[in-house]
Amino acid sequence: MTQLKRRDFLRAVGATAGAGTLFATMGALGLAPTAAAAARQAPFQAPRAGDFTLTGRSAAEVVVLGGGIAGLTTAYELGKAGYACTVLEARERTGGRNFTVRGGDTTVDLYGNRQTARFSEGQYMNAGPARIAQWMITLDYCRELGVPVEVFTNVNADAYLFNQSAGMTRPMRYRTAKADMFGYVSELLAKATDSGALDKALTTDDRDRLVEFLKDYGDLGDSLDYTGSSRRGYSVYPGAAGTPGVEYGDLPTASEIFATGVGRYFAFEFEFDQAMLMFQPVGGMDRIPHALTQAVGAHKIRTGCAVSGITDRAGGVTVAYTQGGRARTIDADYCVAAMPPNLLAKVPHNLGTGVQSALEAITPSSAGKIGLEYSSRWWETDHHIYGGITETDLDVTHIWHPSHGFHGERGVIIGYYNTGAAADSYAALSPAAREKRAVEAGVRIYGDAYRTELASSFSHHWRQFPYQEAAWHTTPDGPDAPRYKPLNEPTGHVYFAGDWLSHLDAWQHGAFASARKAVTALHQRVLNSRA
Amino acid sequence: MTQLKRRDFLRAVGATAGAGTLFATMGALGLAPTAAAAARQAPFQAPRAGDFTLTGRSAAEVVVLGGGIAGLTTAYELGKAGYACTVLEARERTGGRNFTVRGGDTTVDLYGNRQTARFSEGQYMNAGPARIAQWMITLDYCRELGVPVEVFTNVNADAYLFNQSAGMTRPMRYRTAKADMFGYVSELLAKATDSGALDKALTTDDRDRLVEFLKDYGDLGDSLDYTGSSRRGYSVYPGAAGTPGVEYGDLPTASEIFATGVGRYFAFEFEFDQAMLMFQPVGGMDRIPHALTQAVGAHKIRTGCAVSGITDRAGGVTVAYTQGGRARTIDADYCVAAMPPNLLAKVPHNLGTGVQSALEAITPSSAGKIGLEYSSRWWETDHHIYGGITETDLDVTHIWHPSHGFHGERGVIIGYYNTGAAADSYAALSPAAREKRAVEAGVRIYGDAYRTELASSFSHHWRQFPYQEAAWHTTPDGPDAPRYKPLNEPTGHVYFAGDWLSHLDAWQHGAFASARKAVTALHQRVLNSRA
Repeated sequence: MTQLKRRDFLRAVGATAGAGTLFATMGALGLAPTAAAAARQAPFQAPRAGDFTLTGRSAAEVVVLGGGIAGLTTAYELGKAGYACTVLEARERTGGRNFTVRGGDTTVDLYGNRQTARFSEGQYMNAGPARIAQWMITLDYCRELGVPVEVFTNVNADAYLFNQSAGMTRPMRYRTAKADMFGYVSELLAKATDSGALDKALTTDDRDRLVEFLKDYGDLGDSLDYTGSSRRGYSVYPGAAGTPGVEYGDLPTASEIFATGVGRYFAFEFEFDQAMLMFQPVGGMDRIPHALTQAVGAHKIRTGCAVSGITDRAGGVTVAYTQGGRARTIDADYCVAAMPPNLLAKVPHNLGTGVQSALEAITPSSAGKIGLEYSSRWWETDHHIYGGITETDLDVTHIWHPSHGFHGERGVIIGYYNTGAAADSYAALSPAAREKRAVEAGVRIYGDAYRTELASSFSHHWRQFPYQEAAWHTTPDGPDAPRYKPLNEPTGHVYFAGDWLSHLDAWQHGAFASARKAVTALHQRVLNSRA
Repeated sequence: MTQLKRRDFLRAVGATAGAGTLFATMGALGLAPTAAAAARQAPFQAPRAGDFTLTGRSAAEVVVLGGGIAGLTTAYELGKAGYACTVLEARERTGGRNFTVRGGDTTVDLYGNRQTARFSEGQYMNAGPARIAQWMITLDYCRELGVPVEVFTNVNADAYLFNQSAGMTRPMRYRTAKADMFGYVSELLAKATDSGALDKALTTDDRDRLVEFLKDYGDLGDSLDYTGSSRRGYSVYPGAAGTPGVEYGDLPTASEIFATGVGRYFAFEFEFDQAMLMFQPVGGMDRIPHALTQAVGAHKIRTGCAVSGITDRAGGVTVAYTQGGRARTIDADYCVAAMPPNLLAKVPHNLGTGVQSALEAITPSSAGKIGLEYSSRWWETDHHIYGGITETDLDVTHIWHPSHGFHGERGVIIGYYNTGAAADSYAALSPAAREKRAVEAGVRIYGDAYRTELASSFSHHWRQFPYQEAAWHTTPDGPDAPRYKPLNEPTGHVYFAGDWLSHLDAWQHGAFASARKAVTALHQRVLNSRA
């Protein structure tokens, strides 16, 4: 371990004077391992009606390109101060990638595949974003807009792990895989510690505390052996007197469990953006754009309007667009371009080569999902799996159990959530062939019910979807790199916003944060210019 | 590691022929580490109406002692076949320890403390059972009875850990503690492996796979050093371009993080009965006894009836009880005693010394909770904690954030859930003093809002609660020990049921399972005797 000098000092204090002294000293040095200090979002002061009305000044006219989360948020926040915003949205609905598919919804992809969802009443799939971390601005907007939230089941001890390429013929439950991996890892480290192999790295107190931790963490006996654990699970559950339960047998060796590769899935739940608890809006993710649309005012949003040109000019901006096959224009004082960068790069403009080369540097990524509606919730009754994600090394990658509607009559499983080449290979198939391939994979894990209980399916691939052509974007060198400066600052009267201009690309949090940044800059400029 | 011989063989196969061969061989030997094989409850065939009506025979009269989960389930299941059941319940409500406290509810404990809950509309605390694992029979009854369920937030990466006795002056978030513990543990084991210390225990393939796992699990760099990680969390969250976020600083050393003792809380979520995902009924745990009561028929339940005597006699049983101060008796063909064993032991009976000594061998345990209603959900807005449990070494022990009502105006935190001496020490205080002490503890972790936002509180201690006098029970040597045989079999016409006669004491699952066992035995006997 690399140790800072002041840490060496602290270790010496801790070794001789006890933990209490150690922590008191740490506190004095500002070193206490506090994670509780008030974490915060970047500061944001929403525009207010009084910003103009109290001074007799008037707000500006703003045209917003794109009715996704960033565009809607821009219009919503500016609207608080009385800006006259017009949102141009190419589709007939707002939300962008925040798209909840329900029965009756129809899509046509770039290959010409037309699908109409046949999901039952109350069933849906979130084709785009589906989960929200506790710290994300997204939750603040849910609170402000009155969108109820519930737990999104991102991790489940009873969901499965299945690595076919490692030779697994049946899935393991997360809980079993964890018990065995942590059992053997704890045993190995405890014995290494016990044998003196770490005497140079650790003090006697450290070693004692470490072994105590490992015995608990790995469920080791006093001999420091891992010999299985009730944590692995039961084939017959403990019940009444006379039924003590039957623990899973066939404990693998360390070699065997290492060879399965199941441990590769465990760090996911530690990630800052994926750790449970996570949340989703009750009734579908699109409750967020619905609420934003209502707050903005539907009359300010022009749907079916595809942007075809952006011209910055003296005193304002002119945006050309087509609506119902007719060419139109709109003039405004300012423009906030909140469209996908890959599509913006195809729109003629006079914003300069810096803007154009920055847009072209950002590349689109692929992702797809298939929603499989079942006429029973067999995963609950037969497998005792209520929510959560099954992880695989198959090309379906992730299989999601629904986070809502527990004990209902029906439910929608996400049969694949995959990315990159795996997503594109499914996108190249017909919707029926996608379903067939996804179901074949699921049958290997869950058995025949995965096929026999299927009622209908709906698949969606963002890279192949009009007006989007990307699930998210790759921004080489990150959004703060110098080449993106023309996007992070206004060019003339044009601003840019979107998750692709944030440090959380592919998360709504990034879109909200980027919109706030654009709103703040624009509003400050207007306040200054009209003072 | 202790290795079975066949495992040595498998290891040899794996080392020379690759994982695919290894698993194929394992499958052939029935050794595949499958956790997915259909796990199941002990078999149960509910009594059916046709069991009697199709044969022209008649069901029996049964008196059930106690209207908790075991008693209600007994009457419910027997009722399916037409048994004439009468439930005697000492309180004015059913449910037993399944008790959801809402505004207006009044209790008087054995010390004479009278409390009336002042919780707002929609707010509640589950004073008894509060969580359900996915595999528990409890969920099957929720499905059968139409009780909706939602996630119970048993673990949360953003909840806190606080060990004051280790010198911590501020809490750490779970995610930070895990990142640091797993980071250093992974580093230590990876370096030990890399240095050859485990060459005798592991093959080359094993070591490669182990190190690959540890790099991922501990977020180690290629040098195998743990130097912090974004998994620890941020003091300023990543946001728009220009706001990359600020990771928590002040990385502790391995010594320092070991000394905090935070690792002691990590194994909790691996336990078979506590692993997430867990569930709760929407609207309060007492939706279960409410639904059971309705299914049984409220007219079959006599509340306010305290049992005072059990007499087995030729052809039946007579139970004496008091109702409104008047002594009464009821005759029936059979009796199922589903009262707490500590109270049953005080009821005169003629069931023999075996029954009596078995009942007396089972000892009561203490547990308490306090519900703190707040006039704002400051833990969500100020701490970004949505649900989950904060763990402490203070005498409040566990602090629960509510699993429902996210983003609502108010919420109830369980300010302590403690057991044993800690629970009894709070029980000995007045309700006002309990609140004061619990709030003082919480302020140390959460700051002043824990006091200033408090609206009201309600505390409950089962060991000091009439007609219960125990939160759960200790059954020395387990319920299958010979001394409990007089309880696990009928004595004359009297059967016993309760979680205390199961392998999951203190869980409703145990009560359901035990009731099913008694119902099965009684029904089989009746069918045989009336054939």
